Amino acid sequence: MERLDDDYPMQTINNNDKGSGKTFLVHNRSGSLLAELEGQGVMKRNDHYIPVPGEEKATDFGNTKDGCDGKHNQCDFILLGSLSSDEAAPGQKQGPTFKDGRRRVDYVLTYHIQKPQSVRRNTSRFSGSRVLRSLRQTLSLSKSPAMPPPKIDPEIAAQEHRLDYHEDDKRFRQNEFEDNLREMGLELEKDEGNKIPGIGFVKIHAPWNVLCREAEFMKLKMPTRKVYEVKQGSNLVEKINLFIHKVTEPLHPKVESNKPQNIAWEGFDNISLLSPQLLYEEWASYSVFYKYQPIGLIRKYFGDKIGLYFAWLGIYTQMLIPAAIVGVIVFLYGCATVDDNIPSMEICDPRNNITMCPMCDRACSYWKLREACGTARASHLFDNPATVFFSIFMALWAAMFMEHWKRRQMRLNYIWDLTGFEEEEDHRRAEYELRVMKKTLKKQHKSTQRLPLNKKYQSKRDTALPYCNSLTPHTSSHLYKSHRQRLRRLLTPLQVSVTFAIVFGVILYRISIRAALHMSSNPSNIRATVKGTAAVINLIVIIIMDEVYGALARWLTLLEIPKTDKSFEERLIFKTFVLKFVNAFTPIVYLAFFRGRLDLFYFPDDLFTTKRDTCAHAGCLMELCIQLCITMLGKQLIQNNLFEIIIPKIKKLIRRRKSDMDSQQQEDYNLTLQRYEKDHFLGPFEGLSPEYMEMIIQFGMVTLFVASFPLAPLFALLNNIIEIRLDAKKFVTELRRPIAARAKDIGIWYNLLRGLSKVAVIVNAFVISFTSDFIPRLVYQYMYSSDGSMHGFVNHTLSYFNVTEFQPGTAPLQPLHLGYEVELCRYKDYREPPWSNTPYDLSKEFWAILACRLAFVIVFQNVVMLMSDFVDWLIPDIPKDISMQIHKEKILMVELFMKEEKGKKRLRENHSNQSPVQPRCRPSSQETSNC
Amino acid sequence: MERLDDDYPMQTINNNDKGSGKTFLVHNRSGSLLAELEGQGVMKRNDHYIPVPGEEKATDFGNTKDGCDGKHNQCDFILLGSLSSDEAAPGQKQGPTFKDGRRRVDYVLTYHIQKPQSVRRNTSRFSGSRVLRSLRQTLSLSKSPAMPPPKIDPEIAAQEHRLDYHEDDKRFRQNEFEDNLREMGLELEKDEGNKIPGIGFVKIHAPWNVLCREAEFMKLKMPTRKVYEVKQGSNLVEKINLFIHKVTEPLHPKVESNKPQNIAWEGFDNISLLSPQLLYEEWASYSVFYKYQPIGLIRKYFGDKIGLYFAWLGIYTQMLIPAAIVGVIVFLYGCATVDDNIPSMEICDPRNNITMCPMCDRACSYWKLREACGTARASHLFDNPATVFFSIFMALWAAMFMEHWKRRQMRLNYIWDLTGFEEEEDHRRAEYELRVMKKTLKKQHKSTQRLPLNKKYQSKRDTALPYCNSLTPHTSSHLYKSHRQRLRRLLTPLQVSVTFAIVFGVILYRISIRAALHMSSNPSNIRATVKGTAAVINLIVIIIMDEVYGALARWLTLLEIPKTDKSFEERLIFKTFVLKFVNAFTPIVYLAFFRGRLDLFYFPDDLFTTKRDTCAHAGCLMELCIQLCITMLGKQLIQNNLFEIIIPKIKKLIRRRKSDMDSQQQEDYNLTLQRYEKDHFLGPFEGLSPEYMEMIIQFGMVTLFVASFPLAPLFALLNNIIEIRLDAKKFVTELRRPIAARAKDIGIWYNLLRGLSKVAVIVNAFVISFTSDFIPRLVYQYMYSSDGSMHGFVNHTLSYFNVTEFQPGTAPLQPLHLGYEVELCRYKDYREPPWSNTPYDLSKEFWAILACRLAFVIVFQNVVMLMSDFVDWLIPDIPKDISMQIHKEKILMVELFMKEEKGKKRLRENHSNQSPVQPRCRPSSQETSNC
Repeated sequence: MERLDDDYPMQTINNNDKGSGKTFLVHNRSGSLLAELEGQGVMKRNDHYIPVPGEEKATDFGNTKDGCDGKHNQCDFILLGSLSSDEAAPGQKQGPTFKDGRRRVDYVLTYHIQKPQSVRRNTSRFSGSRVLRSLRQTLSLSKSPAMPPPKIDPEIAAQEHRLDYHEDDKRFRQNEFEDNLREMGLELEKDEGNKIPGIGFVKIHAPWNVLCREAEFMKLKMPTRKVYEVKQGSNLVEKINLFIHKVTEPLHPKVESNKPQNIAWEGFDNISLLSPQLLYEEWASYSVFYKYQPIGLIRKYFGDKIGLYFAWLGIYTQMLIPAAIVGVIVFLYGCATVDDNIPSMEICDPRNNITMCPMCDRACSYWKLREACGTARASHLFDNPATVFFSIFMALWAAMFMEHWKRRQMRLNYIWDLTGFEEEEDHRRAEYELRVMKKTLKKQHKSTQRLPLNKKYQSKRDTALPYCNSLTPHTSSHLYKSHRQRLRRLLTPLQVSVTFAIVFGVILYRISIRAALHMSSNPSNIRATVKGTAAVINLIVIIIMDEVYGALARWLTLLEIPKTDKSFEERLIFKTFVLKFVNAFTPIVYLAFFRGRLDLFYFPDDLFTTKRDTCAHAGCLMELCIQLCITMLGKQLIQNNLFEIIIPKIKKLIRRRKSDMDSQQQEDYNLTLQRYEKDHFLGPFEGLSPEYMEMIIQFGMVTLFVASFPLAPLFALLNNIIEIRLDAKKFVTELRRPIAARAKDIGIWYNLLRGLSKVAVIVNAFVISFTSDFIPRLVYQYMYSSDGSMHGFVNHTLSYFNVTEFQPGTAPLQPLHLGYEVELCRYKDYREPPWSNTPYDLSKEFWAILACRLAFVIVFQNVVMLMSDFVDWLIPDIPKDISMQIHKEKILMVELFMKEEKGKKRLRENHSNQSPVQPRCRPSSQETSNC
Repeated sequence: MERLDDDYPMQTINNNDKGSGKTFLVHNRSGSLLAELEGQGVMKRNDHYIPVPGEEKATDFGNTKDGCDGKHNQCDFILLGSLSSDEAAPGQKQGPTFKDGRRRVDYVLTYHIQKPQSVRRNTSRFSGSRVLRSLRQTLSLSKSPAMPPPKIDPEIAAQEHRLDYHEDDKRFRQNEFEDNLREMGLELEKDEGNKIPGIGFVKIHAPWNVLCREAEFMKLKMPTRKVYEVKQGSNLVEKINLFIHKVTEPLHPKVESNKPQNIAWEGFDNISLLSPQLLYEEWASYSVFYKYQPIGLIRKYFGDKIGLYFAWLGIYTQMLIPAAIVGVIVFLYGCATVDDNIPSMEICDPRNNITMCPMCDRACSYWKLREACGTARASHLFDNPATVFFSIFMALWAAMFMEHWKRRQMRLNYIWDLTGFEEEEDHRRAEYELRVMKKTLKKQHKSTQRLPLNKKYQSKRDTALPYCNSLTPHTSSHLYKSHRQRLRRLLTPLQVSVTFAIVFGVILYRISIRAALHMSSNPSNIRATVKGTAAVINLIVIIIMDEVYGALARWLTLLEIPKTDKSFEERLIFKTFVLKFVNAFTPIVYLAFFRGRLDLFYFPDDLFTTKRDTCAHAGCLMELCIQLCITMLGKQLIQNNLFEIIIPKIKKLIRRRKSDMDSQQQEDYNLTLQRYEKDHFLGPFEGLSPEYMEMIIQFGMVTLFVASFPLAPLFALLNNIIEIRLDAKKFVTELRRPIAARAKDIGIWYNLLRGLSKVAVIVNAFVISFTSDFIPRLVYQYMYSSDGSMHGFVNHTLSYFNVTEFQPGTAPLQPLHLGYEVELCRYKDYREPPWSNTPYDLSKEFWAILACRLAFVIVFQNVVMLMSDFVDWLIPDIPKDISMQIHKEKILMVELFMKEEKGKKRLRENHSNQSPVQPRCRPSSQETSNC
């Protein structure tokens, strides 16, 4: 865990506002202050603009986002308590500035200078709606300048998009947008004469007072000077903690080992901490793979949202370590006990003379059970009692992980001052507004039919506009309410049902394809290689379908026209998740639960057939395991390498190619470019959803089918160690610096994780009871075995078949394949023998074992759920030290308040002595709260 | 639902604090303001004092708690915006005042004047620890006068308790306590010369500035003048709402129909709203049983905690209405279809000639299945397919109820201004502190062995005291941490295991008792009357054990020495709940799941015996139903009447008796008494736990076994309609007015309810699949029936027994009882016939039905859980209009803030023009936040 910022020296601003009982605290870490400012959306981007944060990814020292070291206005350095004036000298390696060399560039917006061909070439698909959206934002800015502008999700807005709108309109709107920015107090500088043709830049500087206004508005907290010593417990506990800390010392990134103690350090902070070079060295390099991530640093550079992602990824990876260790132990236990396993010993015994029925019609012949010896031994590796323990362990592990993350998030919230931060009301999407507007126009149209044309147009504009800039819901609430209701009623269930129809269609289609494949591959001997090939084909299908599904989910969500950006994102994520999840897990679910059981449901009349798509003798668990193994490794390798390394490189190359220069020219050209011009060529930041999605599918693999594949956590761990650094590299060097966004938690992903870990319990219960042979073995041992041992289990699981009863055309062509004539052959099922009253009916053993399997599912599910709830209840959501810190801060505030009160009382007494006739306070007077 | 306060006119105090971006809002409803003040614990009670709020329960107009209408100091009436000066005239029906006739009595403390005999007589068991506790409170008050005193749980502290401590010490501490109260700004007046011998009263007045200080400290909000019109949706929706409102008009209590529109109304509010007479008329009277409760009024008079209880009770009762209706419909469906029920028709068919085996050894003989006709028909009432639907319905109902309550609670939180209120850190219990102190003394003792005696004593005191008054945890954190850890490690698991051992011991004991009873009662014919008697005996046992368990839970919790009052309360509630719950449900659980099945688990060698404790032919469901019915009705009637009406009356009588006067004397005497002196004779408020407990057990009855008793919601509804008014009467007339306590939610009760509704799902699944014949019927219909009908089902459920195989001494004494010789008799079980290879073994049908039962449990549990989660997800926790209100209040604040900012900026600009050299702001200067 990162310990950054845990014990900053604190200082209190003892200002006037104490009177209200609310201590106003502002961060003295300017970096974070500004990062949060951005998240709040101080600056807005128009469609014309592409945000390129004015920060070089190279080694220059300084942080352009830190607008507080300029000396340009009445900025109060004491408030910041951090910046010595030396570092604030203008132009001295301070990153890009305005032409006056004093004002820092905080943001750079890019727009396209109107050249018809470039506009045509890159027309965005959604430009119409985007225009509307930005127009609304613009108008909302102009209509209610005092409102905090709504946050645009940078992940969507950051995409490059151009407009094919009317030029005049465009110019007009651009000017209006810039005017609004100025009205908000920002300072702009245009830079159209740059070296990249067709693109103009507007540099934005946020003056100190704007920053302070926003900081105050956001109630940014400032650490107090009082340092509380939270004792970690008794001496022994403290010693252990110290010891642990010493042992893990090399694991902590170097950046955070120096505790901030004085202003000098704060200066250091500003100079070097926010250099991307340090980030690169201490985070984005494979050589530091064993270290904790410098989360504080990441968050300072990329903002809360990305910081939280990496913190989550770190916790997840960390939690995978014990799971991987236990998984390996379970696997090794399987290896060690493979020779003590009586069923596989019996199968491999040379005296074993059991003749099995053919596996397919005509082409196959009888075979000896001995031949399945290898498979039976291999199956034991994944199908032994330790697996049951392991899947209980993993269910609790998942609960622990969720709890651990909650605590970690709480701690980060405290350290990053997000405890009081509330998610803002989201603003509505332009597409939604457009639809509402259209409806209004239609309505209006009907009622104004008799008006002359000109007036009609006028009235249209009048009615349409209020809905465009409606930030205060009550102005348009009536209209949008009725619309929303209609939309909800009609569209949402439709969309949901379409999604689920697709899901189920795909499941059925793929299952039938798989069944067909397996049936045709049955004539040859069933071998691991064949299964492997099938798994590889499956893998390729999964990866291709993944992309298709991603597009499908987006299309479906667009059709739905969600009301707000946030709901758009959540719906998109949910749909993508459902589709991709089903995609990844269909073959696994088929293998685990349906293979060899389908005929039970589909052909009730012809219950007995030998040509079923059955697994090898020792259960489907091994095949499931192979499938899981290949899917996990393959998906991770291909997605990591192909999609995260190679494709971005190719994209970059193509982007270079477009500019029609050879490499020498390119380099020369690069040297002449401003940093923000170079950054323009970097890839855009596409949002965190793909990263989360990848991880959550992996989490599914690790928890859902862990009963069948105890090595899954190990593979996941290895992948994640690489993944972290790969993502880091990508974020630091390959992408434009994302607009920092504020976030208190990981949002919908947490719910998805929770849902997965709940589903995992029941899936594991079913895997253990139905896919593995665990329950049949147990039942045999305690109900049927004559001596309480497993001897005879194999015989018990095999039913008899009278070869004279083959249906016409299904008897093997070579009945003497084994060298002797077969009268009775055996097959793996619990059915009545040919000589019973009801031959080939399901036997009593079948029903007894089925009842036991189901009972096991009930017991397992409820016990594990209870244990998970217990773990949930046992571990407090807020770490003890954090809750004590918060409590102490409250006490401090109370003390301040009471002091203030006493002072006021004295003042008032003095005052009343001077003026004996005391006026009644008015509610609007300043005295009111002091009465 | 109560609509009180929903749309108060709002007014903003535009005071100086806006600069911090925090609008300071204070309620203009003085009643609630003060109620909250009390909850915060402005005034503390010493052990010597018994709180008797100085309010008459009679018809005088005026509210003594409302300290704001006095004219005694610099009180600002405009802030309150409510009180006209006429009403504030002194001495005019304003309730008790100090001797000056101006200052209101807000609290009355009572203490015992030192008379040895009275002190001896009433010595409290826990006086030692209580002294410590009050001492600590006293000291903490004196040590950190600026701290808000910790809240004492009034439910515990309100109990009368006296001390047998040294007189001097007592007097000293009492004086110190009173000094502390004065230092807090309260004004005291002693009244020792009253008419009740041995008891002294101290009247307390809280001046306006103290109230304001606390109000500000608690950040009490004041409604703003701006009234937002939240439109409820489209015209149609509005019309429907209006219609509903008109229809339900008579259901609303009269007090709340007048919307507050002006000051005049507010005056009315103060005069009449807080009169207990109105409460009595509109709430505590049976004649208004069909009305909503005046929740706002209740909360104003009793505080948030009790207000929340009644709000919860109201919602629960309200939600019971649909459940009761559906339950009755289900029951009627059962009645209507009883003649179409093929199995009972077959049993009652005169052609039915099945001979059943005897129900007991020797004494019983063979009997005709026809005899069970009545039972079979009655069973159908509770065991039909509608029951399955009803238990799914009730599971969803429980989820809806929880959601509904969450929303209601949110709305109340908003209306009562609790949204920002955070539960205070709880203070530690004296018992815990005492233990810590003792340990410290022991330690200290060891280290000071060599010091002379005097010094040793001194050092003891020095070390002991800091722990007595440690309100700031870090002073004693080290010590108490290590202690806490040790205590946790050793005591808690021990206690938990003891509780559970008791629980399981009781279960086993009662089950065996029941089994024994049933076995001995078997010789006679099984009749409903016998079952009814058994149920009544059970009921009496339950009610007696309830009291025993209550004491046991308290004793166990005291042993545990929990750290804080809150944890004490929660642990006590949890233990009481577990014990009482087990107590109430053991016989029901036994009937539902164990009766007739025990031998399966206990006598594996002697599987077949006819003398098992079986239910009547058509399943145990009917007996379960009788048991539930009697328990519910009986428990409710007895507990309501006996414990809530009769016992308090008796107690009151005894209290009267003690004063050795006849009734005439008594009346005369009463007339001379002050109101607070009369109140002294009322019963103390014992806390809400018993009320909640009763309701939660009822909730368990309604949800847990609803599958077997669809009329449960109806009974619960009828009970609750009485219960509300009964409780109301008790609170208004029988008890001393409780100290108001602040609370945001119903605390641990919510978790218990949630837990119950989760357990209900699985219990209902088991009741349907195992207790009812639903699954066997279904299985017969689809697997065994020749024509897909239920014909032959009865025959299918009966196995054969060869009468020659009776074990020696068990054959019936009168084998010819039926008039013919019996060779084969039938019994209800799925076993192999005597002529099979494995006679009397469980048959294939048994296992198939068992598997189906278990599969049903799995499907039912998961589907219902999924549906509950879906309901949970579907219904937003915060009502739409409340979230919009909150959002708009935020917007208002933002607007104010931005205006303020602009004003400041202008001011600053002017200022900087005047003084060109601007000084740097210091953190402590008032300008800081304006930079």
